Amino acid sequence: MTDFASWTRAVQTRIDTALASALPSPELEPKRLHEAMRYVALGGGKRVRPMLAFAAGEAVGADNALTEAAACAVELIHVYSLSHDDLPCMDDDDLRRGKPTCHVQYDEATALLVGDALQSAAFEVLAEAGASAGMLAALARAAGSRGMCGGQAVDLASTGRQIDLAELEFMHIHKTGALIRAAVLLGAQSGGTLADEQRAALEHYAKCVGLAFQVMDDVLDSEADTATLGKTAGKDAAQGKATYLTLMSVREAREYARELVDDALAAIAPFGELGRRLAEIARFIIERQY
Amino acid sequence: MTDFASWTRAVQTRIDTALASALPSPELEPKRLHEAMRYVALGGGKRVRPMLAFAAGEAVGADNALTEAAACAVELIHVYSLSHDDLPCMDDDDLRRGKPTCHVQYDEATALLVGDALQSAAFEVLAEAGASAGMLAALARAAGSRGMCGGQAVDLASTGRQIDLAELEFMHIHKTGALIRAAVLLGAQSGGTLADEQRAALEHYAKCVGLAFQVMDDVLDSEADTATLGKTAGKDAAQGKATYLTLMSVREAREYARELVDDALAAIAPFGELGRRLAEIARFIIERQY
Repeated sequence: MTDFASWTRAVQTRIDTALASALPSPELEPKRLHEAMRYVALGGGKRVRPMLAFAAGEAVGADNALTEAAACAVELIHVYSLSHDDLPCMDDDDLRRGKPTCHVQYDEATALLVGDALQSAAFEVLAEAGASAGMLAALARAAGSRGMCGGQAVDLASTGRQIDLAELEFMHIHKTGALIRAAVLLGAQSGGTLADEQRAALEHYAKCVGLAFQVMDDVLDSEADTATLGKTAGKDAAQGKATYLTLMSVREAREYARELVDDALAAIAPFGELGRRLAEIARFIIERQY
Repeated sequence: MTDFASWTRAVQTRIDTALASALPSPELEPKRLHEAMRYVALGGGKRVRPMLAFAAGEAVGADNALTEAAACAVELIHVYSLSHDDLPCMDDDDLRRGKPTCHVQYDEATALLVGDALQSAAFEVLAEAGASAGMLAALARAAGSRGMCGGQAVDLASTGRQIDLAELEFMHIHKTGALIRAAVLLGAQSGGTLADEQRAALEHYAKCVGLAFQVMDDVLDSEADTATLGKTAGKDAAQGKATYLTLMSVREAREYARELVDDALAAIAPFGELGRRLAEIARFIIERQY
C-alpha cells in the first residue's frame, strides 16, 4: 500500500481529472462562466472532502463511479461556497489558494453565478452517477440552511461579538462539519446501505475530524504567514470573528485537537486495516502546517 | 371542473402551504436566515412554474406527493434566482412582488445565503419525495450553467450591446426556458416514465410557452406601471438590456406570442381533455395584464 503522501497526491490528481470532466468545457457557451467555474474548481485546494469520501469508501470496500461522484459532489459544494464567501458582501477576500479570488479575477456577478452553477453541478454529478434519493437528500441537507449555509449565517451573526465554546462549535458543526459528515457518509454509502453501527462510527469520526480541522485552522491562521496559507493570514481575528484562540491558548487548542483526533481514531477502530486512510487523514490534521 | 381562475387560486394556496411546510420553521436556528427564506419564498408570485408542474401531472393523470414536490422544487429554484438577481452586483433591484427585495429588507449577505439555501432546499424537497436520480439530474441541469445560470450569464454579457433575435432567444431559452421545461417534464414524470411522444410533445409545449411568456413580459414591462407589475417597470430598457421590443414592435411582439401559444396548443392536442390546464395556462400568457 502506498504511503499517505502518495495517496494524497493520487486523490488530488484523480479529483482534478474527474472535476475537469464533470464540468462543462470552456468551449461551450457561456464560455466566460464555464471558464470561471473551472478557475474556481480546478487546480488547487487540499481536497480534504474528496479524500474523506474516498477513504470512507475504502473503509467499506467501495471504490466505484459513485464513490468518485460523491467525492466530486462534496468538493463542488465546497468550492461554490468559497466563491460566495469571498464576495465583498461576505468575507471580502481577494486571495484564495494563492490566486486572486473569483470576483477579483472576473467580477462579482460572475462569482455569484459561478457559485450558483457549481452548486447545481454538485447535484447533477451525484444524480447522474445514479445516487439514491437518500444520498441526494443528504447532500442537500448538508449544504442547506440546517447545514453549511446555516453555519455561514451563524458565523456572520457572531462576528464582532463575544461567543462561548458551545456557540462556536454549533457554528463549526454546521459551517464545515455538515459537509465533512456528508463526504464521509456519501463515500461510504457509495458501497451500499450502511449498517447502523457503521453509520454511527463514521458520523462520530466525521464530527471529531471536522472540529479538529477547524481548531487547527484557527491555530495555523494565527501562526502561519499568507504565502504559506495561500489565503490571507490573521483575517478572522482582524475581522473580529470568534475563533478557538479567543477562547483558549494555542497550547490548549492543539491539545484539544489532539483529543478530538484520538476520539476519531477510536471511532473507526472497528474498520481495522480498511480504515487506514481515514486514520491517516485524522492524524494529518494535527500534523499539517497549512 | 372548476374554471381557470379558481384552479389558479387553488394551486397558489396549495403551493404556499407546501412550501411553508417544506421550509424550516423560523423558530429554528439560524432564525434570521429561515425567516428571510420564507420572506422570499412565501406569499407572492404568480406561481407559473408550479401551475405548469401540476397541469403537466394532470395531463398524464398524476397528482401525488411527487407532483407536489416537483412543483415546490422548481419554484424554489425560481425564487432563489430572484433573490440573487436582485442583488446590487446583478440587477440591483429594490422592489419585487410589491415588497422590498431581500437584500433591502435584510442585507446583501443574507440575500446571498437565502438564495444558496433555497437552491439546496429545492433538491432536498425533490429527493425527499423519492424522485428518481434522472428527475434530480434534470432539475440540476435546468438550474445550472447550461440552463438558468447560463442564461443569466448570457443576459449580463449582452447588456448594453445590440443582439439579434437568435441571441435573444438563446438567452431566454436558458434563463427562463430551462426551468419552465423542467416544471413541465418533472410534473409529468411524477406520474411515471413518459413515452417518447409524450415527452417530445411536452418539451415543445414548454419551449413555446416559455418564449411566449418572455415576449409578453417584455410587452407588459413596456406598457404597465410599477404598481401593477409589483416590480420596477421599464427597468430592462433603462438598463440597456435587449428585449423583444428592441427587435420588433409591440404589435409584432403580441402577434409572435400568439403564434407561439398556438404552437404550444397544437403540441398538447393529443392529451385531449387531460391537457386542459396546460392549454389554459398557455392562453393565459397572452391575456394577462401583469
